[in-house]
Amino acid sequence: MPLVRIDVQAGRTPEELRQLADVVQDVMLEVFAAPPRDRYQIITEHPVGHIIAEDTGLGFERSDGVVVIQIFQQGRSVEQKKAAYALLADRLAAQCGVKPTDLIVSVVANERADWSFGYGRAQFLEGDL
Amino acid sequence: MPLVRIDVQAGRTPEELRQLADVVQDVMLEVFAAPPRDRYQIITEHPVGHIIAEDTGLGFERSDGVVVIQIFQQGRSVEQKKAAYALLADRLAAQCGVKPTDLIVSVVANERADWSFGYGRAQFLEGDL
Amino acid sequence: MPLVRIDVQAGRTPEELRQLADVVQDVMLEVFAAPPRDRYQIITEHPVGHIIAEDTGLGFERSDGVVVIQIFQQGRSVEQKKAAYALLADRLAAQCGVKPTDLIVSVVANERADWSFGYGRAQFLEGDL
Repeated sequence: MPLVRIDVQAGRTPEELRQLADVVQDVMLEVFAAPPRDRYQIITEHPVGHIIAEDTGLGFERSDGVVVIQIFQQGRSVEQKKAAYALLADRLAAQCGVKPTDLIVSVVANERADWSFGYGRAQFLEGDL
Repeated sequence: MPLVRIDVQAGRTPEELRQLADVVQDVMLEVFAAPPRDRYQIITEHPVGHIIAEDTGLGFERSDGVVVIQIFQQGRSVEQKKAAYALLADRLAAQCGVKPTDLIVSVVANERADWSFGYGRAQFLEGDL
Repeated sequence: MPLVRIDVQAGRTPEELRQLADVVQDVMLEVFAAPPRDRYQIITEHPVGHIIAEDTGLGFERSDGVVVIQIFQQGRSVEQKKAAYALLADRLAAQCGVKPTDLIVSVVANERADWSFGYGRAQFLEGDL
């Protein structure tokens, strides 16, 4: 936790995809209070045209390099979310060449009872975490 | 916002998929209070058999043309949701040939702090939107 | 409802994937209070390396056979969730060879108004269910 879905369009190499995922994880560790080895990411590549993203009138165009990051988590504050958005944009631009206009992030909250990380246990409820 | 995941099985042409996504977006604009250019869609095609949908005993069968639409959003009312379901069924049948028995829609809510549409900003919190 | 996303990496046969989905559905019926024919599953296969899962420090390694099950639903109790996690781990190990250390489950809740199973109707609100 968090569980992060990273949706992109085809065009990056496997190494570039891994780097992108690594940078996302760095941000989870640095500002989203994820503990070490708390990494759960699903990367999905789509054909160009299968991610359709406009700008809600904010005044920019998306490119084929658009990245949608959907974060399922519990317990983060508004300040943590704002810090994560900002750091994701900075780091993904600097380390992966993702344009700040190509980054869309959406968060969904659930509860501590909503997670099982292995062995069929609800680790947050059973004292494991 | 909303972020809409459209999951279908293989069998539609690229043009048919685009038309399907366009119709979904029309409904978001018309009855789900999405402002102009507020479009965020991820289309995923799956091999036949990878979407398994029954009917909860409602009395119909799904075909391979099944369409699952998952809408992540905040702030819509029950009436808006009902209107969206009805209009999606009507329009997708009329304009895309989707059987009303092949349409499954599910909505998930989050908060205004849960969205960043670009530049690493939380646009709903920072006065941009 | 529930809508269940099952994400795995490539390597299982179609029959093995179907068996995995069937077992997940059995658990929904047995301990998650899903009524008969209440089955909504989306299976997505990813290239190896596109699901990156560590262990939050719990002390195990994931294999390429990792299975991520994300369940969108409303109304289940903490006890039902705990029972589902445990039974998923048991059954998927026994019937599908999924290691208990390869099973990650995450639940997201919505509301009764958030579901349409066909015909553009909100079945939970309109007396159909």
